[in-house]
Amino acid sequence: MKTMTLLCLGIALLVVSGLLINTSRAEKGTSERLRHVVLFKFKADATPSQIDHLVKEFQKLPSRIPEIKEFEWGTDSSPEGKNKGFTHCFLVTFADEAGRDAYLPHPAHKEFVAQLRPLLEDVTVVDYWAKK
Amino acid sequence: MKTMTLLCLGIALLVVSGLLINTSRAEKGTSERLRHVVLFKFKADATPSQIDHLVKEFQKLPSRIPEIKEFEWGTDSSPEGKNKGFTHCFLVTFADEAGRDAYLPHPAHKEFVAQLRPLLEDVTVVDYWAKK
Repeated sequence: MKTMTLLCLGIALLVVSGLLINTSRAEKGTSERLRHVVLFKFKADATPSQIDHLVKEFQKLPSRIPEIKEFEWGTDSSPEGKNKGFTHCFLVTFADEAGRDAYLPHPAHKEFVAQLRPLLEDVTVVDYWAKK
Repeated sequence: MKTMTLLCLGIALLVVSGLLINTSRAEKGTSERLRHVVLFKFKADATPSQIDHLVKEFQKLPSRIPEIKEFEWGTDSSPEGKNKGFTHCFLVTFADEAGRDAYLPHPAHKEFVAQLRPLLEDVTVVDYWAKK
């Protein structure tokens, strides 16, 4: 009986410390994200299916480039009319500059850019360390 | 002895289901974020202390406008030279369009924009629903 009680306490302690570690990691993570914001404006003759294909190719990069820690994207729906023709936004997150610097010349990234370039009219890229 | 074993199993089950619920919540959260990306290019005669002040004013908005669910910002550090003069990026997150539509005409936001405008050379805004 005593052994089981100690075992239970031990398990509870492990679980609680595990949760605490996870929480502190998550909080730390938030303040240590290098964001890579990419805006695309496609050429007028780029077809919807070509654009779809490019988005799918971009979506494959996180599984090909382990330095990508988070990835999300979407199409502009701002009512403000200040998107300057940029219709697609991608938010790629790295742990640090080394991650970003591994991503930029990565063969999978270069392959994607080679497919993208003929259809792209304009691009804006801003990287920043996420602060609160 | 048997009771303690059952108790241990019960606790383990509760913990695991708790973790699963948390994970699914986090995943759901990610797919239900309306992002509002704002890029600023300041006028050449805007001083660093004026810019600092504006950033601090923007940082106050999450506590003034409850519709802002997440807020982060940073200054451009991209080595690619595609930032088009935009030096500051703000990522404001809403739960839905109603949140964004409450933010845009909110008195605290308008007050901030009134302070910002004389120092701003250019702005780009893109909103998107975050998809994976």
